[in-house]
Amino acid sequence: MNGIFLTFEGIDGSGKSTQSRLLAGHLEAAGFEVVLTREPGGSPGAEDIRRLLVEGEPGRWSAETEILLFTAARRDHVERTILPALEAGKIIICDRFADSTRVYQGATRGDLRATVDALHARMIGREPDLTLIIDMDPDIALERGLARGSGEDRFEEFGAEFQHKLRAGFLGLLEDFPDRTRLIDGTQGAQDVGREIASLVDTYIAARA
Amino acid sequence: MNGIFLTFEGIDGSGKSTQSRLLAGHLEAAGFEVVLTREPGGSPGAEDIRRLLVEGEPGRWSAETEILLFTAARRDHVERTILPALEAGKIIICDRFADSTRVYQGATRGDLRATVDALHARMIGREPDLTLIIDMDPDIALERGLARGSGEDRFEEFGAEFQHKLRAGFLGLLEDFPDRTRLIDGTQGAQDVGREIASLVDTYIAARA
Repeated sequence: MNGIFLTFEGIDGSGKSTQSRLLAGHLEAAGFEVVLTREPGGSPGAEDIRRLLVEGEPGRWSAETEILLFTAARRDHVERTILPALEAGKIIICDRFADSTRVYQGATRGDLRATVDALHARMIGREPDLTLIIDMDPDIALERGLARGSGEDRFEEFGAEFQHKLRAGFLGLLEDFPDRTRLIDGTQGAQDVGREIASLVDTYIAARA
Repeated sequence: MNGIFLTFEGIDGSGKSTQSRLLAGHLEAAGFEVVLTREPGGSPGAEDIRRLLVEGEPGRWSAETEILLFTAARRDHVERTILPALEAGKIIICDRFADSTRVYQGATRGDLRATVDALHARMIGREPDLTLIIDMDPDIALERGLARGSGEDRFEEFGAEFQHKLRAGFLGLLEDFPDRTRLIDGTQGAQDVGREIASLVDTYIAARA
């Protein structure tokens, strides 16, 4: 298992997708083999489960059912995309992973965090090597996110108050997992954020080598 | 919670669906309100998950992912169909429930039974009040099952040896859950099996009252 497992986390509209692509380009230019993926999804089966999760009404699933579906998608993604790539020595860049489930479900109902963690421990196990948390004012991020109009906005529809809870949840990950998480200020321009992340990841890779 | 939760279990082709309908008719004729349902499925969301489970290649999902999807479908089914009906005092007749997951996954890999049980304990909790296990020679049942050609034969495709393991697994439930399980000889004619079940359930209901 020689590869590196990097994840991006943060609220919708904080720039995770853009930064994932910028980082992938930076690492590929440096000669690394990179697999760019995302959750929910990232493998054919997990993408099928993703459609159940992101389409339909906000009340389509209870929080508990949602946690089970996210964990099912993640198990498939880890088995069929992430672990094979890591075993082949590649760098995985994943837009959202288990931390998103911890934060979203915890923001919905505090008691669910224990359920998310218990399912993760039993069914997934693996944590990222390095997690980049892009922080941004939720009002700006919400505007960007809704403006995307991807049709996959079931989560975004929960509204501004919910996004503020999410921001607090993502910042809380820095305390829960201090060894593998890094805070990135997402309010800078995308190129500046990208340079900060590239530098941070270069340093991380150099330290591991 | 005044209703009664009845389940049918057994290998494919053992007559569960037919017997579920016969029992529903018998209880309705006796004046009970009956909800006839099945797993995987039984609620709109669970039926969506069912399609992921029953269609496609045998290797579409790992056993672990499959357990998570079954548990997700079951959680939705319990929340949205089973518990509301029981609270309204109705009789639920369910064609397969958690015991099927225990037996199928246990027959695939023995170590998975603990995973199924742990997920059930945390995410479902509820067991049936009475489980009717229809026993039948797997060679006869397999023939019947494949003859149905429902297009949902991903499990049936695992073959005869697997069906023999399943039969042993279903019989094992009698030892694991002696209080709520009853053995039914499925090799009799359907009408005879139906009369035996009707009599057994009538006795059970009378004893509860």
